[in-house]
Amino acid sequence: MTTDPLATLHARLRELQHLNQAMALLGWDHEVTMPPRGATGRAAQRATLAGVIHEKMVDAELGVLLEDLGNDPALTADDRANVREARRLRDRAVRLPRQLVHDLAETVGLAHAEWVAAREHDDWSRFAPHLARIVDLKRQEARALDIGDEPYDALLDEFEPGARTAALLPVFADLEAALRDLLAGLDTATPPPILPPGPYPRARQAALGREVLVAMGYDLAAGRLDVSAHPFSESMGPGDVRVTTRYDEDDLLSGLTATMHEGGHALYEQGLPEELRDLPAGQAVSLGIHESQSLLWENHVGRGRPFGTWLTGRLREHFPDRLAGLDPDHLVRVMNVVRPGLIRIEADEVTYNLHVILRLRIERALLNDELDVADIPHTWRELSRDLLGVEVPDDRRGALQDIHWCMGAIGYFPTYTLGKLYAAMFWNAARRDLPDLDTHLAAGDCQPLREWLGEHIHRQAARQPAADLCREVCGHHLRADDFVAHLRGKYAAPADPDTDPRE
Amino acid sequence: MTTDPLATLHARLRELQHLNQAMALLGWDHEVTMPPRGATGRAAQRATLAGVIHEKMVDAELGVLLEDLGNDPALTADDRANVREARRLRDRAVRLPRQLVHDLAETVGLAHAEWVAAREHDDWSRFAPHLARIVDLKRQEARALDIGDEPYDALLDEFEPGARTAALLPVFADLEAALRDLLAGLDTATPPPILPPGPYPRARQAALGREVLVAMGYDLAAGRLDVSAHPFSESMGPGDVRVTTRYDEDDLLSGLTATMHEGGHALYEQGLPEELRDLPAGQAVSLGIHESQSLLWENHVGRGRPFGTWLTGRLREHFPDRLAGLDPDHLVRVMNVVRPGLIRIEADEVTYNLHVILRLRIERALLNDELDVADIPHTWRELSRDLLGVEVPDDRRGALQDIHWCMGAIGYFPTYTLGKLYAAMFWNAARRDLPDLDTHLAAGDCQPLREWLGEHIHRQAARQPAADLCREVCGHHLRADDFVAHLRGKYAAPADPDTDPRE
Repeated sequence: MTTDPLATLHARLRELQHLNQAMALLGWDHEVTMPPRGATGRAAQRATLAGVIHEKMVDAELGVLLEDLGNDPALTADDRANVREARRLRDRAVRLPRQLVHDLAETVGLAHAEWVAAREHDDWSRFAPHLARIVDLKRQEARALDIGDEPYDALLDEFEPGARTAALLPVFADLEAALRDLLAGLDTATPPPILPPGPYPRARQAALGREVLVAMGYDLAAGRLDVSAHPFSESMGPGDVRVTTRYDEDDLLSGLTATMHEGGHALYEQGLPEELRDLPAGQAVSLGIHESQSLLWENHVGRGRPFGTWLTGRLREHFPDRLAGLDPDHLVRVMNVVRPGLIRIEADEVTYNLHVILRLRIERALLNDELDVADIPHTWRELSRDLLGVEVPDDRRGALQDIHWCMGAIGYFPTYTLGKLYAAMFWNAARRDLPDLDTHLAAGDCQPLREWLGEHIHRQAARQPAADLCREVCGHHLRADDFVAHLRGKYAAPADPDTDPRE
Repeated sequence: MTTDPLATLHARLRELQHLNQAMALLGWDHEVTMPPRGATGRAAQRATLAGVIHEKMVDAELGVLLEDLGNDPALTADDRANVREARRLRDRAVRLPRQLVHDLAETVGLAHAEWVAAREHDDWSRFAPHLARIVDLKRQEARALDIGDEPYDALLDEFEPGARTAALLPVFADLEAALRDLLAGLDTATPPPILPPGPYPRARQAALGREVLVAMGYDLAAGRLDVSAHPFSESMGPGDVRVTTRYDEDDLLSGLTATMHEGGHALYEQGLPEELRDLPAGQAVSLGIHESQSLLWENHVGRGRPFGTWLTGRLREHFPDRLAGLDPDHLVRVMNVVRPGLIRIEADEVTYNLHVILRLRIERALLNDELDVADIPHTWRELSRDLLGVEVPDDRRGALQDIHWCMGAIGYFPTYTLGKLYAAMFWNAARRDLPDLDTHLAAGDCQPLREWLGEHIHRQAARQPAADLCREVCGHHLRADDFVAHLRGKYAAPADPDTDPRE
């Protein structure tokens, strides 16, 4: 074994990453391939592996290595980033009392089945005591972590390192005002344009999905496309990044957009830098940046007019009996219908962030002890009415719709909105650098975009924090303007060109 | 946390088993679902996890616990078995240097792709350097383990705890003599009986395979049936035991017999005792006993005349266009054709063990430094001529045919023959206890046999060593007689009843 401290650090960090990858496979298999009676054993395997990872993370020798190397002026920039990221991850692990980690894992383990049952029976009171316990434990977690200025900061920081609530709120406020304004001016009453009715056979949807993924630049020899209850992507390293989707034979576009979305995540993971393989600086930098990659492909490429030209041709060929006469303008109109609704994951580009803003308000209020868990359904109804103009008929389509809280993932929702904002910013930067982008996309040629993302985002990995990456690529900090301009360009009625900036 | 030493021991042993199960999933996924470019990462994940398992196994506190509890007269029989098995496993781990374990895992991880390529291009020289490295590491392993009287003992002991080369050789010699004798008396020149030509569509073969597995008692809610290059079964605990097979549209029976074979392995794993879940005494006792379970189902049930009655009905129904007129006697004759051939996994009951004897000789010679890796193809040809009377035309159908060596599994092949011998012994014991067995099997009712195996083999797990289990169930030690009598009963021309014992 080596005695070079840097080599020792690399070996320890790679070991941790290999174990994280094994954990990722246990999770992927749980959703995609595991037989039902394997669930109990799988929970035990994951708990044990999580314990091993925690043990190795809090190991004192790793702490000493990171301390010593953190003061070493001879480190390369990449290794400074490795030390920074490793310290951040280790600090979190060290600050969390073992008992709290255990209690959270146990509470979350029990809460899942109760959330499923509560949703099935539309019975908030069944889930409420579990959520109350989770919120209490997350408050303890925030206190133990002691990051930022308010409890929510510590939770947000897990998913979006460096992000602070106080800095996000003004951006979210700008966004909210613009979305309310935009939504008020839209016709959401006329029946929306639709595709010819299905069935669109699953096997042909899968063949189309594979073709679209390959067009995006996804390497099927380093991944696979499967079906799961909820679409997701999972990485076991850049050579094995898997995508799942789901197919509705009556709704061709839901599976297709999910495939492009998860494909965008997967391109990021497949594009991480080989020279930092299995090291912390070589991983995705934050969930917000990750989400920007999925949304850039789903919304800016997939729902855009240029790519729609190519996509129309593919749809005509895959579904000649249904879509032989499909027109690209019609396809793009169908893909961009705006209708305020109850369900976040079904929401369009305009209303989606209002769902997130609703959840952010509730989460902060819970953490700051300004809202009782029992009152969430009432608050949910009021906020839905105010933000989206919709009446929530039951909790299964209201406060019980998302899995996140029962998993203990509080502070996660804002990263979806960060993803929207980053995606629009990166999209504008890419268009500035790639004047012929539309022509390429209209021909189904995504390579220039893929390469631009590879150079500016994917291969940057976590070499610098998300905020710095954003500033370097886009020339300024996180802001709502690019996203709002993108929406206005798509949805606002033509107006005075001086006050209505189009892309 | 508990301070009860027995509870602490159980917790540590269960943790190890959970990690072994995660390792099993990494292996299953590697063969069934992993994309090709995942191989490098997977090798690293397996090497790291192997290192963690090794670390936990050699942990000094575990040693002290086992030492203390080994002297505790208050232990139950099950816990004495847990301590015995854990000590055996730990002793192996303690004796193996960490670097050797790591090197082996890594070498094996990289060798797989080279073996695949070597086989594809019939190029021994491409695989040879990897095998030479593996043999060298296995020699180091044998030296470090220092079990038995010759290097091969230490390797054999990993798969068949307690077995020794010197004790097996006379049994194998008896067997070889009987097989040579039997083979010499058989007509292997007449064109064999065959089924109507295919194609037998894969999907219908899979449906048949599922039905046969369920008839055997396999729980599909605690398993799955997939396709892989080489059929195998893998367990992630009794609730998740997976079977793979492969389908040849021109050869209906190869996939079916492989499915029954792997199904027999899977029944053992699904039938392990719940009260010893994730503890060493609750695991399969040895590979020889494991193989007896697969072979009992494949050969004694699957190729037998009683089950053939039921199977004929199922085949008629699944393939009415090909097999509507199938006769059970004809099916059984087709399933029991004896023809010396090149490929071990395609070999019949008579010649199979000669393939094993060939490999055993080569492996012992490699370990004893009496054979160089470069000379294996030549030796393989000579032994094939002598034992089987066949000429080996190329290495892909010779020394490159098996996956075992590239996995580092040297000392494994003899367990196949042990499996044949144990299977015949257990089959005779079961028939003694279940006088109506043939009637049940002819109706496709495998439950009495499944229950007998559950009681006498599966739920016994590793509560006692394989040799003791054999003696308890059969009344005597391992011997070739039962198997030879089984073959004579099937294949030998009727002779003097006094010297030709039939079942």
